[in-house]
Amino acid sequence: MMKISARNVLKGKVKKVTPGAVNTEVVVELAGGGQIVSIITKESAEGMKIAVGKEIAAVIKASNVMLAIDCEGC
Amino acid sequence: MMKISARNVLKGKVKKVTPGAVNTEVVVELAGGGQIVSIITKESAEGMKIAVGKEIAAVIKASNVMLAIDCEGC
Amino acid sequence: MMKISARNVLKGKVKKVTPGAVNTEVVVELAGGGQIVSIITKESAEGMKIAVGKEIAAVIKASNVMLAIDCEGC
Amino acid sequence: MMKISARNVLKGKVKKVTPGAVNTEVVVELAGGGQIVSIITKESAEGMKIAVGKEIAAVIKASNVMLAIDCEGC
Amino acid sequence: MMKISARNVLKGKVKKVTPGAVNTEVVVELAGGGQIVSIITKESAEGMKIAVGKEIAAVIKASNVMLAIDCEGC
Amino acid sequence: MMKISARNVLKGKVKKVTPGAVNTEVVVELAGGGQIVSIITKESAEGMKIAVGKEIAAVIKASNVMLAIDCEGC
Repeated sequence: MMKISARNVLKGKVKKVTPGAVNTEVVVELAGGGQIVSIITKESAEGMKIAVGKEIAAVIKASNVMLAIDCEGC
Repeated sequence: MMKISARNVLKGKVKKVTPGAVNTEVVVELAGGGQIVSIITKESAEGMKIAVGKEIAAVIKASNVMLAIDCEGC
Repeated sequence: MMKISARNVLKGKVKKVTPGAVNTEVVVELAGGGQIVSIITKESAEGMKIAVGKEIAAVIKASNVMLAIDCEGC
Repeated sequence: MMKISARNVLKGKVKKVTPGAVNTEVVVELAGGGQIVSIITKESAEGMKIAVGKEIAAVIKASNVMLAIDCEGC
Repeated sequence: MMKISARNVLKGKVKKVTPGAVNTEVVVELAGGGQIVSIITKESAEGMKIAVGKEIAAVIKASNVMLAIDCEGC
Repeated sequence: MMKISARNVLKGKVKKVTPGAVNTEVVVELAGGGQIVSIITKESAEGMKIAVGKEIAAVIKASNVMLAIDCEGC
């Protein structure tokens, strides 16, 4: 088994796959509701046999997560 | 109102705040279950008055989302 | 209104849009002079109706900004 | 001389330096007006002798630039 | 000469180039063995005349490097 | 076993660990020669028990790899 330093691992199922020439867009329906969109290389998507319905995890390094708030007049 | 190109906006509440000298770590409990960890600058965290219990959204650019699968012998 | 933790928001106007199958390249002419190039998903570009002449802001997380200096013999 | 693939190189002068234990925050005043904030490692900041007033360039990969627009009711 | 804050500069030779409409994938064979894959804009790849056999360096900001370990039952 | 979409996995051994309040800098000596520097959260570094001499892999998403060339008068 492998453990990675990325702090965010969100489980879900592949909902949609859109391949381009170099990159592929993958929409993942999260187990907890909502969805997450990922852009990976086409070669990775093919190597992992990513297809609609496949169980998958979205992995995100904490330094790539921004935060946003609603505010009045800001 | 502002619309941002980042495809991923996950709503939740601040669960834990750990400030350093330059960066602050923020743990967000997602509305859909699970949590997400973010590293932002201390100045942003203070400017946004981020504190435990505050409603917040995690914002992530799609190109920063990796995918992972379980597999046998890979 | 929304406030985001990203420290860098640079205002300008869209100068050029180049769509691919998955990603779109957008060149922004900055209000202060100079330009900035962004790669976002085609779906974001279409959803935001990004077109030449549109007022726009480039948003960049501080941890994604590198620094460079000129130096002799370095 | 070195040429880098990063599409965005914005020239300016160092305005403020805030060192932490591992990372250093650097505020750069852009030649064209406005400012940009960068987080780099403390070791890089020291190795490059970054100090207030020093001429510097902010370097940003296009895939790390998001776009945002103002909109009514979005 | 230019010095950049990115801590990681790995030298090698271009092994394969795959252009798309917006992005180009470049595989670099490292001098020390192994290889590294990069996605840059097509315009950068063309501007730098990247072609198989060319001497090149892969440049990576330290905050974009994750770490992984093998472990039993983790 | 887990397979991740990140295209770059470089094996090595931990050479130096510098913890801060929030982030930890880890220098990895690559098996093929050369080294790579990573910034991860302190909590990840502790959870993975990262220490000098430990076998480790550096994992990098292809979209985070820039390229650079030497050139005359560029």
